Amino acid sequence: MPAAISLEDCRVLAFDALSRAGVSPANAEAIADHITRAEADGCKSHGLFRLPGYVASVKSGAADPGAEPEIVDAAPGLIAVDARRGFAPLAIARGRQLLAEKARAQGVACMAIRNSYNFAALWPDIEPLAEEGLVAFTFVNSQSFMAPAGGRAALFGTNPMAFACPRGGGRAPMIFDQASAATARGELQIAARDGHAVPEGAGLGPDGQPTTDPAEILQGVQLPFGGYKGSSIALMVELMTGGLSGGFFGYESAADHKRDGGPSNGAQSFIAIDPARLAGPGFLAHVEALFERLLANGDARLPGDRRLAARARTAEDGITVEDALYATVQGLAGRA
Amino acid sequence: MPAAISLEDCRVLAFDALSRAGVSPANAEAIADHITRAEADGCKSHGLFRLPGYVASVKSGAADPGAEPEIVDAAPGLIAVDARRGFAPLAIARGRQLLAEKARAQGVACMAIRNSYNFAALWPDIEPLAEEGLVAFTFVNSQSFMAPAGGRAALFGTNPMAFACPRGGGRAPMIFDQASAATARGELQIAARDGHAVPEGAGLGPDGQPTTDPAEILQGVQLPFGGYKGSSIALMVELMTGGLSGGFFGYESAADHKRDGGPSNGAQSFIAIDPARLAGPGFLAHVEALFERLLANGDARLPGDRRLAARARTAEDGITVEDALYATVQGLAGRA
Repeated sequence: MPAAISLEDCRVLAFDALSRAGVSPANAEAIADHITRAEADGCKSHGLFRLPGYVASVKSGAADPGAEPEIVDAAPGLIAVDARRGFAPLAIARGRQLLAEKARAQGVACMAIRNSYNFAALWPDIEPLAEEGLVAFTFVNSQSFMAPAGGRAALFGTNPMAFACPRGGGRAPMIFDQASAATARGELQIAARDGHAVPEGAGLGPDGQPTTDPAEILQGVQLPFGGYKGSSIALMVELMTGGLSGGFFGYESAADHKRDGGPSNGAQSFIAIDPARLAGPGFLAHVEALFERLLANGDARLPGDRRLAARARTAEDGITVEDALYATVQGLAGRA
Repeated sequence: MPAAISLEDCRVLAFDALSRAGVSPANAEAIADHITRAEADGCKSHGLFRLPGYVASVKSGAADPGAEPEIVDAAPGLIAVDARRGFAPLAIARGRQLLAEKARAQGVACMAIRNSYNFAALWPDIEPLAEEGLVAFTFVNSQSFMAPAGGRAALFGTNPMAFACPRGGGRAPMIFDQASAATARGELQIAARDGHAVPEGAGLGPDGQPTTDPAEILQGVQLPFGGYKGSSIALMVELMTGGLSGGFFGYESAADHKRDGGPSNGAQSFIAIDPARLAGPGFLAHVEALFERLLANGDARLPGDRRLAARARTAEDGITVEDALYATVQGLAGRA
């Protein structure tokens, strides 16, 4: 029987668990906010489920739980952030307002973050930018889990990217947030636990041969979505993260990782653009016409629509937390 | 027996054919340069093969062969270009230097082009930016040929994007240039002509059902690469082109098209970033280390490596042009 709690309960529980592990108030607040947004949007894999990993990363000495990110105003349109081995959410929260200001002043701005432990979903990182009327990209890498197309050894992280476009009429922005891997790592883990096969193309076993056995893939390597085209996207994400930030590429991140079950020292970048200064005031109505056509096209969906439906539901009803996880996070928060 | 000509012959032939069709010298030079670069890189589908389409677009009255693009300095980091119903190459050539200057001054810059007839490969558009040390993106839409994932009717163009990263040591930049469609439209046309099936996932027939018959797909719709993730990329390209420029989305472009065999009135955007101002002077060595690892990984390839090998070959040996096409373009150039 899952526990039913409010979003506010979730936020306090996450904050308390992180604080008890020694995470500073500013960091704990930023992480708890990310976790709560994921739960609100029905994305369990990036919700309270991640708390034990954050705590493990503190206990292993990998991430610095009291890190204060360094924000450098590198150019009129650029921000360079050194997260100083802290968790990503605080570095993002601290840099984002300056990014939005630069994007409004210059028309476009870019922020690169290095030395950051990222364990979170990406849409919460750029939704505030799109709520201010900006088009936004973000790219994140992680320790390497994935071979490039044609390769057999892990080189890239699962390398998600997200893209946000503002909408008018009080609608939440359109945001897609997707890994460059064919299959999410969490899905592989669940399929391995339950003994299910995964679709062809998800990965290679330790012998370098294609397999649909998720346990084999977890010991081997994942593969990009969409063959060589998805592999190009994964490469772009590496270059826009470890490259642009001067931080770690996926393989450097893997070499550094403490195998503690927590996040890896990775990198992230953002691009924000003010569309009204290029397309004029008709931008929102124009993109809405595209979205309307998309929604009228067979069974096509607008990316993120399930998340937003979950958000409307959880705002009323709160969330449920699977029993074993609830016991774990209560224990971490010192309430067991 | 194919004709063997030099790259300079190719350039003059293209220029003459375009001039004879009434294309202004500035436009003809920009288009001839694009065509010659495609031939030099072994990309026949965007080389002289495209000349009859450019000429058809002039003859039908779709594109304005004497258009002078309007370049608006919209913000410190933004350029808005109205190609004024001209062909894309001149609009790009005219705006690109300002884009590079802004990217160096601000650290990042963005250019959106509307009202532009684009029939060309994308890598030549961003290679000059990467040769100046900038990381660069470009996105292009076209008339709609592709349904979104889950949909059945054409909504998006085949929506290519390209991404360029500078390399040190005199190496040509790494550039990938790929459609969001599972299969290039040209490949479908060739497969239909030759009676070959195409892989599953390439498209739907006019009945809305998946098929591997290219002739059926050409009468139906193409599909994005990589399922819903590729569909998100295609949507991003639409938003970054028709959306950001205030120009046409794919379906607007299709409604406007004269069915003349030439390009459609589409849109394009560019983002250029100065990586050295974020990552520092170690950027080139760092990305080279990633590329080396990629090249040592099984049969993985660096995007564009076949293009660059062709470039080295054609610089020495020139190009060959298939006989019927050579006769056609010679006719267009008034030499038949």
